[in-house]
Order: sequence, then structure tokens, then C-alpha cells
Amino acid sequence: MSNIATEPFAAVEIITAKRDRKVLSDPMIDWVIDAYTRGAVADEQMSALLMAILLNGMNANEIARWTQAMINSGERMNWSMLKRPTTDKHSTGGVGDKITLPLAPVVAACGAAVPQLSGRGLGHTGGTLDKLESIPGWRASLSNAEMLAVLDSCGAVICAANASLAPADKKLYALRDVTGTVEAIPLIASSIMSKKIAEGTGALVLDVKTGSGAFMTDPDQARELAHTMVRLGLAAGVKTVALVTAMDVPLGLTAGNALEVRESVEVLAGGGPSDVVELTITLAREMLAAAGMSGTKDPADALKDGSAMDVWRRMIKAQGGDPDAALPVAKHQQQVLATSDGVLANLDALSVGVAAWRLGAGRSRQGESVQAGAGVELFAKPGDLVKKGEPIMTLHTDTPERFERALEALDGGWSIGEKAAPRLPLILDRITE
Amino acid sequence: MSNIATEPFAAVEIITAKRDRKVLSDPMIDWVIDAYTRGAVADEQMSALLMAILLNGMNANEIARWTQAMINSGERMNWSMLKRPTTDKHSTGGVGDKITLPLAPVVAACGAAVPQLSGRGLGHTGGTLDKLESIPGWRASLSNAEMLAVLDSCGAVICAANASLAPADKKLYALRDVTGTVEAIPLIASSIMSKKIAEGTGALVLDVKTGSGAFMTDPDQARELAHTMVRLGLAAGVKTVALVTAMDVPLGLTAGNALEVRESVEVLAGGGPSDVVELTITLAREMLAAAGMSGTKDPADALKDGSAMDVWRRMIKAQGGDPDAALPVAKHQQQVLATSDGVLANLDALSVGVAAWRLGAGRSRQGESVQAGAGVELFAKPGDLVKKGEPIMTLHTDTPERFERALEALDGGWSIGEKAAPRLPLILDRITE
Repeated sequence: MSNIATEPFAAVEIITAKRDRKVLSDPMIDWVIDAYTRGAVADEQMSALLMAILLNGMNANEIARWTQAMINSGERMNWSMLKRPTTDKHSTGGVGDKITLPLAPVVAACGAAVPQLSGRGLGHTGGTLDKLESIPGWRASLSNAEMLAVLDSCGAVICAANASLAPADKKLYALRDVTGTVEAIPLIASSIMSKKIAEGTGALVLDVKTGSGAFMTDPDQARELAHTMVRLGLAAGVKTVALVTAMDVPLGLTAGNALEVRESVEVLAGGGPSDVVELTITLAREMLAAAGMSGTKDPADALKDGSAMDVWRRMIKAQGGDPDAALPVAKHQQQVLATSDGVLANLDALSVGVAAWRLGAGRSRQGESVQAGAGVELFAKPGDLVKKGEPIMTLHTDTPERFERALEALDGGWSIGEKAAPRLPLILDRITE
Repeated sequence: MSNIATEPFAAVEIITAKRDRKVLSDPMIDWVIDAYTRGAVADEQMSALLMAILLNGMNANEIARWTQAMINSGERMNWSMLKRPTTDKHSTGGVGDKITLPLAPVVAACGAAVPQLSGRGLGHTGGTLDKLESIPGWRASLSNAEMLAVLDSCGAVICAANASLAPADKKLYALRDVTGTVEAIPLIASSIMSKKIAEGTGALVLDVKTGSGAFMTDPDQARELAHTMVRLGLAAGVKTVALVTAMDVPLGLTAGNALEVRESVEVLAGGGPSDVVELTITLAREMLAAAGMSGTKDPADALKDGSAMDVWRRMIKAQGGDPDAALPVAKHQQQVLATSDGVLANLDALSVGVAAWRLGAGRSRQGESVQAGAGVELFAKPGDLVKKGEPIMTLHTDTPERFERALEALDGGWSIGEKAAPRLPLILDRITE
């Protein structure tokens, strides 16, 4: 009982309150997040609380306070010294989702500032930092002063969040990963939004993916997550809007680090797959609108006139990268061939994502390294005509013993028929409150 | 992923299965208990699983397997070398529940052997070992050989479980205490029954308390716990029966360690409060019947003819105690006086239990010491006539600064009126399957 004199709560009383479906008070939430961050609440107590939250839920006020407490556990960045309004995007992650790479330069080219703090991948979805690290020399870790310098000179910066930003979330995220408490909307929403609010952006567009390759396979759950996050952003004074978008089929024609950088550069050069271009332009317009800059340059023009490419090259150089260097290529390739003539009927995002992961593009544990050249390159998307014996896709890896399990992941993940199977529209929903 | 090669499961897959309301397979349960015992499943993973079990439940097969896995984590004792059949009792704990003290000698005096492994108290309910340790010289810790020798020579032994008995339960019990996962029937039932089955008794009578001073305040919950435990015992080949008994009012006239030993000796001498005598005889008859010894001596006779007292004296001596030594008396006393003439209308078990705890009879954390002399001595039970200014009870403690908070606990816990308030019958239910 020695801590009763100094601590206002006991961890057990907060755990049992949520276990018994009670609402946690503001002081309870403030204390438990603070006490966990400094080690006064043990991992085994927090994981029991997280499981109770996952199963019994939190109301809107609890989620908002939980988010605020995580923000308060660290520093909150401030970009008021910039001449441009700040705007950012967060994607819940998907297969082939390289959109941040062309998007940040496009939005900067249209006049806003994009202070994008990104993460690394885990499991079958890739991470923006992993992709950019395939560019020779590029550095993800910047000091706050370096981040400001890149943002001020280029209009966009993509880098790793430093340890002082929402440290409670970092500790909770690692705990959730090993305790089966990842899949709770209050915990997902507060984790994402605490980092984005602490990042100090003035406007935020959320790309909430749904479909087989997404974290939220069910569109209704994706909508609920989107609503929860939009409310959190607005409550914190961030102009927030969410799009619910398709992740039943991979985005674009590549899944893998260097492969996706190559495709992103094609988009910045005015080409690239139509779905990647469409989503980039749609999200860029939303980001500009949320920042109050709708009347300026249109993103489609920034892709055509080379101004987005110019921002990209300066941004990569400012972080030590060589935009002209050859990208890494995997040492081994294997093709997957069409087994008949017809139309590619379906191409499952999860199957392709797991294949790319198994080829070495992704990691199974935090801290594992990834192969820059590994991944899946697609030659057909659903609805495209295919011919027996011609390649549907090429698998890339440095370690050819990985082909077998990648092919297993793809087994049943695509089929040829007379016409394409029904699929989700690229944009399912737009959520503003 | 280094452990995937050597471990058949990952902790997260078992946690998420129970989180998602799936039934855990036998191999899952066997593995998770074994892996937790040897440290391959972390505390924060087990506590998340325990919370999922508390909120989503386990079916009868899962509870039985969980119990068996805890038994398998340590040794199982064997008394087949004894000439007498073994029979034991377990109480879920209550205020003034000293029944084990007279009961074990009574049953031994009627011909059965009682290998009673007991525990220490935590919170407002006392522990059998704490009570016996108030007898000068008495030792709770015995080797297996010493336990057998006492049991063989006296017919009964009351001692502490050694560390090799259900070690998984010991680790889980400590974890549940700090993670808000105590109050789950599958976890309570498996914890109790794993120890009792590992103890090796052939027959078992469960005394499941209900009412304000019990762990299960609700009689229906007490019945459910009783049914669950009886099924576990029968499935393990132990002849098991349960009584659901009253704990709305303290048992007998004392709550506290030496105070309860004194009262137990009065019962063994053929006197003592009627409720303690009745419950002792009822439980003794059940224990003898479960052991197939109904036709032998009746427990009421063993109390009257001194044979139970004889076993008590030999049993206490065999464990180093002096049955003739004066029991410790607390240094300070304070009386609680009747505020009017009338009938004691009610006397709340929880209030008296918390008062005794606060006076020093109980502990707040495992490992804390207790005061042998502390506790509450009652002079009236509900229905008794009381007279203004005469004592209702005496509080005992070595540390008089404790009186104030003990009196606070008693505030509202008793009242004087025209007649006694309705109360639970001593025996609410008898559960055989």
C-alpha cells in the first residue's frame, strides 16, 4: 500500500471499472496514461485494461481524453513560423499504398506545407519510410531543426517521428502488438490521432482503407474508425476529413519498397497507373481544401507541369538521397504466368501483400530489416485481358528460397474468367463529422 | 519469429481466439499454462488472456482442461498408503469462518483422514494458517514426509501447500490480484480445484459462502461457482459435494486469529456458538458421507465425548504447538455499546470483517504480518435482546490508532430495532452435480 499515499488511483480500480463497463473519468485516464509512461502502472496491468477496453469499448469523451493524455505524454510540434498553412494525410495502410510519396510533393507544389511523420511497415502492409530508404543515401531520422529546414525550403518533409512525440503511444503500440489488443477502434483511433495531432498539422485528411488487404476489412468498421478519428481531430482543432477507400485489389502495379518508389516517380513524371494518379489527386485536393487553399494550383496540373517532381527531387536531396541514383533491384525474379486466355477476374490485395512480405519486402517483428528490391510487380489488374503463358506478375527477392511460400500466398488469390468480379469503388465514402 | 520453430503456438493467437469468443482447444490450454509457468508467455500476455476469459467466459471443457493443466504444472500428492479414506473441505472464505479448526479433528475422530492444505488471509476474510499461527510454537510449513507422519498419527493435518503443488496457479493467482481478473468463475473454480485435486484427497466438501461478507455476494453466483467446482472435482475422480452457506452475518462470536482459535477450542470442548457447531457437524457428516464412512461415529458424538478434542491436541502438538499455552491477547480493547434498548436487528458480515482487518487481524498485501490478538468479539447476534449502554462488541488491537477506522467500518453495519431483519438460512443449498 506504499503508493497509496503518493498516487491518486490504484491501477486495479481503473481496470475493474472498465471491466465492469463503467465510464473512466478524466482524472483516471490522465493518471493511467501518465503512470504507464513512467512505469508506475505495469505492462500486465495495462494489457488487462486494454483488453477490457477492446471488449467493453469507450465512449466519445473517454476516447478524446485518452488521445489527449497520450499527446500530453510528450511534446507537441508547432509550425506557426511557416508562411504556409500545414496539411497532412494519414493512411491506415494497404498493399501497394505508396500514395504519400507523390502526394506530399504535389500538395507542396500547390502551396501548402506537408509535415509528414511516417512509420515503418509491419506485416503485409508496407511502410512509407521503408520505401524511401530504398533510395541510396536517404535518411528517415531528422532533428526537429532539420525537419523544419526541409519543410521550409521544400514545402514537404517525410521523416520518422522522434521519441519525444506521444511516448505513451509508442509504449502502448508495442504492448498491443504482443497482447492481442490491436484491433480496437478506440485504441487504433487514439494511437493514430495522438501522433497526428502532436505532429502539429493544421489540417488532416485520413485515408481509411477497407477490403481484404486493409486492416479494417469490413467497410462499416472502416466508416466507424473514420468517424471516430474525424471527431478526435476536430475536437483538437485540426481540420479533419476522412475518405474510406478501396483495398480489395492492390493499389497500382507494384508492392515492395524500391518497386513502389519507381512507380511513384512515374506518377510524379505525369504517368503511372490510373488508380494511383486518381487517389493522389483526390487526396491532394482534400488536403488543400482542408487547409483553406482550394483556389490555388490544381494537383493534376502540378503532376503535369513538373512542379511536383521538382519538389520531390529537392526533398529527397535535402534528406541525403540521390533522386537520380539507380534504385536497388532484387537478385532473383520469378514470373507467374496466365494459365488460360481470358480476363483477370480478381486479384486479392491480401494475397499480393502477403506474397510481397514473404519475398522480403516486409517484416514480422519491429526492428527486422527489409529487402529494398523485393516485392511483386503486376502486369494485369482485374478486367484486363490476359493470354495463356504470358506473365500476370513477377516476384522479386534477394533470397530465392522465399519464392515457394510467396507462391503459396498467391494460390487462390487471382483467377482468370470471362469478366472481372465485382469490386469496391476506389472512393467508398467521404466523412466530415 | 525465433520461437516459431520450437513453440507450437504464439501467445497472441490464443489471446485473440478467446477475445473473439472462440473455444480454446486442449493443446492451446495445455501449452499456454505450461509456457506461462516456464516464462515463455509473458505476464502482460497472460493478463490480457485472463481479462478475455473473465469477459467472454470458458465452457465446461475449457475449465476442466485449464484446471488439469494447472495440476500438471506440479506434483500430485498421493495418500494411498493410508489405511483410512481421505476427505477434505474447502471454504471460499468468510468473516469468523474458523470451521476448519474444529472440523478436521472431528472428522478424524470419526475415522477418516483429513489432509487439509490451507492458505493465509487476504483482505477482510481470515486465513486458517493465520489463525493457527496464533498458537505458540505451531508451524504451518511441513515437508511431504512430515505431513504424512502427522496425518498418519493424528488422522488430520492442517498445513501450508508447498511450492511444488500447482505452481501455475500460484503464479496466476498473484497476477490476477494486480490485474483486476480475480472475479471470474472459471478462474476462481480452477484455482481452488487445481490445488484441492493436486492435494490428493479422495473426497471433498465445498463450503461456498454467499452474502455481504462473502466473495460471492449473490447466491446465484455462489450456486454457479459451486456447480462449476463440483463438476471439476467429479471429472477428476474426487467425490465432491458443495453446500452454499450464509455469510450475511459473521459466523460465531469472534473474527480474528487468536479469538477464533479460542472459540474453536470451545466447540471442541462441546460448547461454542450454535451456528459454528451446526455448520461443523453438517460439514463433517458431508465429508464422511463423501468418503463412504456414513455408518461410523457421528460428528456430534465426537464433539461431546472428547475424541475430537483429543485429535486437536495431538495434531497441534505434532506441528510444534502447545495446546495448553495461553493464546495472545491484544494490548488494547474498546467496547461498542448499545445505543438503545431493543433487539439487535442486523449485524453485517462485511462491516465486521473490514473492522477486524483494520484492527490488524488481516493483511492488505501478500507477505504482510498480522496481529495474533486483533479482531472483533461479539456479545450479540441478530435477534438477541440488547440493553442501552451494554456492550454489543469489543474491538481488540495492539495498535490503538486503528480503532478509529475500525469504528468507521462498523458505522451502519449494525442496528437496534424491534425485531431481527430477514437473514439467509445457514444452509441455502446442497449441490451434488
